[in-house]
Amino acid sequence: MIDLRSDTVTKPTREMRQAAYEAEVGDDVYEEDPTVKRLEFTAAEMLGKEAALFVTSGTQGNQIAGLTHCNPGDEVLLEANSHIFLYEGASMSALAGVQPRTIEGIRGAMDPTDVRAAIRSDDIHFPETGLICVENTHNKAGGAVVPLENMQGIYEVAREQGIPVHLDGARLFNASVASGLSVQRFADQADTVQFCLSKGLGAPVGSVIAGSTDFIRKARKWRKRLGGGLRQVGMIAAPGLVALTEMVDRLAEDHDQAKILAEGLGNVKGIEIEGKVETNIILANVEGLNLSAEEFLVQLKQEEVLAVPFGAHTVRFVTNYDVSQGDIREVIERVHHIASRV
Amino acid sequence: MIDLRSDTVTKPTREMRQAAYEAEVGDDVYEEDPTVKRLEFTAAEMLGKEAALFVTSGTQGNQIAGLTHCNPGDEVLLEANSHIFLYEGASMSALAGVQPRTIEGIRGAMDPTDVRAAIRSDDIHFPETGLICVENTHNKAGGAVVPLENMQGIYEVAREQGIPVHLDGARLFNASVASGLSVQRFADQADTVQFCLSKGLGAPVGSVIAGSTDFIRKARKWRKRLGGGLRQVGMIAAPGLVALTEMVDRLAEDHDQAKILAEGLGNVKGIEIEGKVETNIILANVEGLNLSAEEFLVQLKQEEVLAVPFGAHTVRFVTNYDVSQGDIREVIERVHHIASRV
Amino acid sequence: MIDLRSDTVTKPTREMRQAAYEAEVGDDVYEEDPTVKRLEFTAAEMLGKEAALFVTSGTQGNQIAGLTHCNPGDEVLLEANSHIFLYEGASMSALAGVQPRTIEGIRGAMDPTDVRAAIRSDDIHFPETGLICVENTHNKAGGAVVPLENMQGIYEVAREQGIPVHLDGARLFNASVASGLSVQRFADQADTVQFCLSKGLGAPVGSVIAGSTDFIRKARKWRKRLGGGLRQVGMIAAPGLVALTEMVDRLAEDHDQAKILAEGLGNVKGIEIEGKVETNIILANVEGLNLSAEEFLVQLKQEEVLAVPFGAHTVRFVTNYDVSQGDIREVIERVHHIASRV
Amino acid sequence: MIDLRSDTVTKPTREMRQAAYEAEVGDDVYEEDPTVKRLEFTAAEMLGKEAALFVTSGTQGNQIAGLTHCNPGDEVLLEANSHIFLYEGASMSALAGVQPRTIEGIRGAMDPTDVRAAIRSDDIHFPETGLICVENTHNKAGGAVVPLENMQGIYEVAREQGIPVHLDGARLFNASVASGLSVQRFADQADTVQFCLSKGLGAPVGSVIAGSTDFIRKARKWRKRLGGGLRQVGMIAAPGLVALTEMVDRLAEDHDQAKILAEGLGNVKGIEIEGKVETNIILANVEGLNLSAEEFLVQLKQEEVLAVPFGAHTVRFVTNYDVSQGDIREVIERVHHIASRV
Repeated sequence: MIDLRSDTVTKPTREMRQAAYEAEVGDDVYEEDPTVKRLEFTAAEMLGKEAALFVTSGTQGNQIAGLTHCNPGDEVLLEANSHIFLYEGASMSALAGVQPRTIEGIRGAMDPTDVRAAIRSDDIHFPETGLICVENTHNKAGGAVVPLENMQGIYEVAREQGIPVHLDGARLFNASVASGLSVQRFADQADTVQFCLSKGLGAPVGSVIAGSTDFIRKARKWRKRLGGGLRQVGMIAAPGLVALTEMVDRLAEDHDQAKILAEGLGNVKGIEIEGKVETNIILANVEGLNLSAEEFLVQLKQEEVLAVPFGAHTVRFVTNYDVSQGDIREVIERVHHIASRV
Repeated sequence: MIDLRSDTVTKPTREMRQAAYEAEVGDDVYEEDPTVKRLEFTAAEMLGKEAALFVTSGTQGNQIAGLTHCNPGDEVLLEANSHIFLYEGASMSALAGVQPRTIEGIRGAMDPTDVRAAIRSDDIHFPETGLICVENTHNKAGGAVVPLENMQGIYEVAREQGIPVHLDGARLFNASVASGLSVQRFADQADTVQFCLSKGLGAPVGSVIAGSTDFIRKARKWRKRLGGGLRQVGMIAAPGLVALTEMVDRLAEDHDQAKILAEGLGNVKGIEIEGKVETNIILANVEGLNLSAEEFLVQLKQEEVLAVPFGAHTVRFVTNYDVSQGDIREVIERVHHIASRV
Repeated sequence: MIDLRSDTVTKPTREMRQAAYEAEVGDDVYEEDPTVKRLEFTAAEMLGKEAALFVTSGTQGNQIAGLTHCNPGDEVLLEANSHIFLYEGASMSALAGVQPRTIEGIRGAMDPTDVRAAIRSDDIHFPETGLICVENTHNKAGGAVVPLENMQGIYEVAREQGIPVHLDGARLFNASVASGLSVQRFADQADTVQFCLSKGLGAPVGSVIAGSTDFIRKARKWRKRLGGGLRQVGMIAAPGLVALTEMVDRLAEDHDQAKILAEGLGNVKGIEIEGKVETNIILANVEGLNLSAEEFLVQLKQEEVLAVPFGAHTVRFVTNYDVSQGDIREVIERVHHIASRV
Repeated sequence: MIDLRSDTVTKPTREMRQAAYEAEVGDDVYEEDPTVKRLEFTAAEMLGKEAALFVTSGTQGNQIAGLTHCNPGDEVLLEANSHIFLYEGASMSALAGVQPRTIEGIRGAMDPTDVRAAIRSDDIHFPETGLICVENTHNKAGGAVVPLENMQGIYEVAREQGIPVHLDGARLFNASVASGLSVQRFADQADTVQFCLSKGLGAPVGSVIAGSTDFIRKARKWRKRLGGGLRQVGMIAAPGLVALTEMVDRLAEDHDQAKILAEGLGNVKGIEIEGKVETNIILANVEGLNLSAEEFLVQLKQEEVLAVPFGAHTVRFVTNYDVSQGDIREVIERVHHIASRV
């Protein structure tokens, strides 16, 4: 099987396994695990934030942001197709008691003017706007890089109004590598940032949330409440450190492969690539094959290739560390084969 | 002052006051208030539902619907400009822990196809769709009557999928009078219905929520939790009964006055009426006067007329029982006066 | 029927009905109802607080206190048999997401030392102690007056630790009349106070919560979220004003009647009065009659007297405005009759 | 340092590290990690439940139980000194909106009669009793084994009333080893069970929750909402499997050591062992040394021994895999040394 469903499927590298094997550990509930401390310190430094906290997933990082920044009855502004809104089980409402208010973006980027317009004024009928979330790169928009200028525009509006900004940077390193801008440049435009070690960076498990020392202190208690306070977490933090220090630059390869794959798929009659491929995600529309996404995926699986549906006729492919150049060529060939059959 | 801010500002009639004065009462926490029982019975009958419950406001009725129908982490589908989403302080998320998912409607009517598309499939990342809400008449759409056929289409989708429908019928009687269809016809297209006694019907306080006997039993406990379990509530239920039995037909007058007002305002240079006036709400766009809604309202107030802002340049007027035909003529004249000055 | 189930069953007086009939009203969501303003102002003055807010019930007042004072995940200290813990449907946990931590009191009075010991220290495993609640008079403790000194002791502990105190004074006026101390003396020992207009004071509906101006501003929004933002509320506030200004002193009569009733019942062989009768509540233990509370109440009802069960063998009687001296004599006689039969 | 603060401080064994290094992994959000599947299957079998789910901590397991079993506004019965009530940040109220109602147990065991008495009847004022929690062994009661007969008595009451029982078996294997009864015998007396891999069993991270297939399906979604849906979790599940299959029997050694330590400490003048030492926890009262728990711990730390405070004068010691017989002798000697000085 060539697995292009997600970059989350990547297996840990030998070096990561070795790091786990050798990890110096302690009980992190007592804040005594040296490896997770090193990971958190490294992450905070890279993002230019005061402090950071290891969390077990991107969802946990985002949820902790909601719980820590907001009060129940607040409203949270976020892009209409953002991961937090679509793919986290309505968790921010369930756990933090906040109402998401969505804004349609262009390639994941909300217009700062729309954001300003959506902020609530002081009225007995209105919730208070408690948080603005930005997602970068934007998954549902096909791995689009939300431009730094856009984030600056939104952050300006937010600071004007005294509203915090949380960056769901599950794939922030992809945005950095694709744009040539440091992750810190993006992180500077938000109060808190979450990024995943377990996607393109290849770690088996985990994400990091960063922000002010005060924010992280409160976030630590919410993490405990969610059951994310772990013990000898160094065993997972160690591979995470390898991911953070060794795997960032190689994301460029995923992006290159994605472009090759997109070009190849785009040449298949009946398939159209949706939007520009900027990072490691390709959205391919298969309507021209007279197939639904689900039908196409059945055939693809028969060809031993995996991807996921992302709309009625849209299929998402994600390049990742476990997929070789040869695999990419194979995938293109097999999709041609499918197209020739239908 | 001629007060056109809302139909909520209407003062109770003499008959309502008399009814309060004479009301036979009991302790409704023990379910012993005969007057509220009569009100609930009458309302249930009119709506064709098994049972009904007096609540202190439309917001309380809607919130109880969310709390009773849903589980935390559910998603609720509702129109993008619905009252529940915009004007209830994010309460459904705060109290019931549910996530609203908005659908843009046309004059308040969501396309059943859009509703079907927004219902979540079974996936670990997704909330379950726990409720669909319809608002009729639709306040923010200028008192638009959501057509019965539209409600039928939505209810069909909902039943197919086993999802309950709640009708926020704060102004359902306006929809009924304007369309010539009984309230029951609309109520038939929903599992639960809330309507207000205190708007066009003129009661000082209160709303009613209706549904199945089982729903109302659970709703009663949620009402208690919200602090809506009252004692000698007959004192308020009695005017509510007058509203329900004596004031429905006269809503036609409000609608007539609204049409006259709309026509008059529409003739003022610089003012455009937004959409069709079907019931007692008029949305007037004052951009042609080079005034913001707020600026216009300042001038209007100097002329001793009150209305409310409903957008950057949009002003909402609501005709109601306490506004006479003469008042309407006055308002038109005074707006002409403002227009001539700017 | 002689109804001694609760003081909530009292019917509004003619003067209250008259007040409702004549009430000057406005739309209180716009804060324009002069009667409710007068009620709130009067209540705030009596309690020595900056501001007050009309709410529809004691439960609503208490819940708003929890929602306004606390953050989710906080712990609330309160007496083990307090109304908030036992009789409000677990609402503080359901709505405000807080955990009650109960302390056994003596006649409703928690030992300040126990309160101090229950306050949480700073630890990742612990909730923060967000509120301390005191109930006075204490319903389940048989209408016991929690001594002012006790409240002072608790408030001292609370201020030391920066934790707010809320007084559930559903029957605070009974405490005041029984102790000869002004309600303000008690209210001084709490940051916020809730009292009911609808119990011994006889109003048909409503309670008041009082506190700082800032607290009341926030409380107003939570009231709106709960559906407690009403329109021409003056119709209910007016009888409430009568209750507050005309009915306080007469509580002494209820207390006198309660003493007479307690003495009479205490003389019935097989019945023991539990604790001292200080206000309008009598707890009678009927175990000596070899009857459960429920069995006793069945017989009592046959004698056309109503009371409520308050434990396996405990029956609660509450004297109130609608029960005359003659009624009390009748009740004693009929209970003798029951005792003679069993 | 000899670390007796908790059994959570144990470092993973070489075999566990090796297992992590070699773990066969997959993406568990897609349910494709074979190692975690094996762990879950093994755990379910041992407990005699249909299904099991890996969670990141005991707290997460307990919270998922609350979220899955209960509705907001329910009441949960649990022992007054249970971990869920004392040490989980009021999380069940914060996340699931339920109210804990505590029952004082004897050595952690609640009397089934008290449990029955605390179950709520059907009344508009009352929450519904949604869950009963039992903790075994009971941490705060000094690692006491809650007798199987006691659990049977509680489960009988629960089934009578249709209320689910959740067993917080963070240290269930200690109960099993100490009593000579299989974990399944205990698990049979509950609908769902949580146990920790990371305490006496020595795994670096993780717990397991088990129950019916339907329960686990719902629990999986709540786990995702809490951010506990992980990717290549086999890296942690593998050491967990070692813990579960290799480390259970050796808990007997911890218990033996605990008895030796208790005896030694009990011989120190001024120290009293509280209760019987049944498993790996010792509660030592140091009041006789005229020291608070905190003061004693300072001195202990100077002697390079760590323990934790568990009350004003109570110190908890927990024997564990990383503490040798020689260490235990050392600790006793050093405590003698402290006692001789004070």
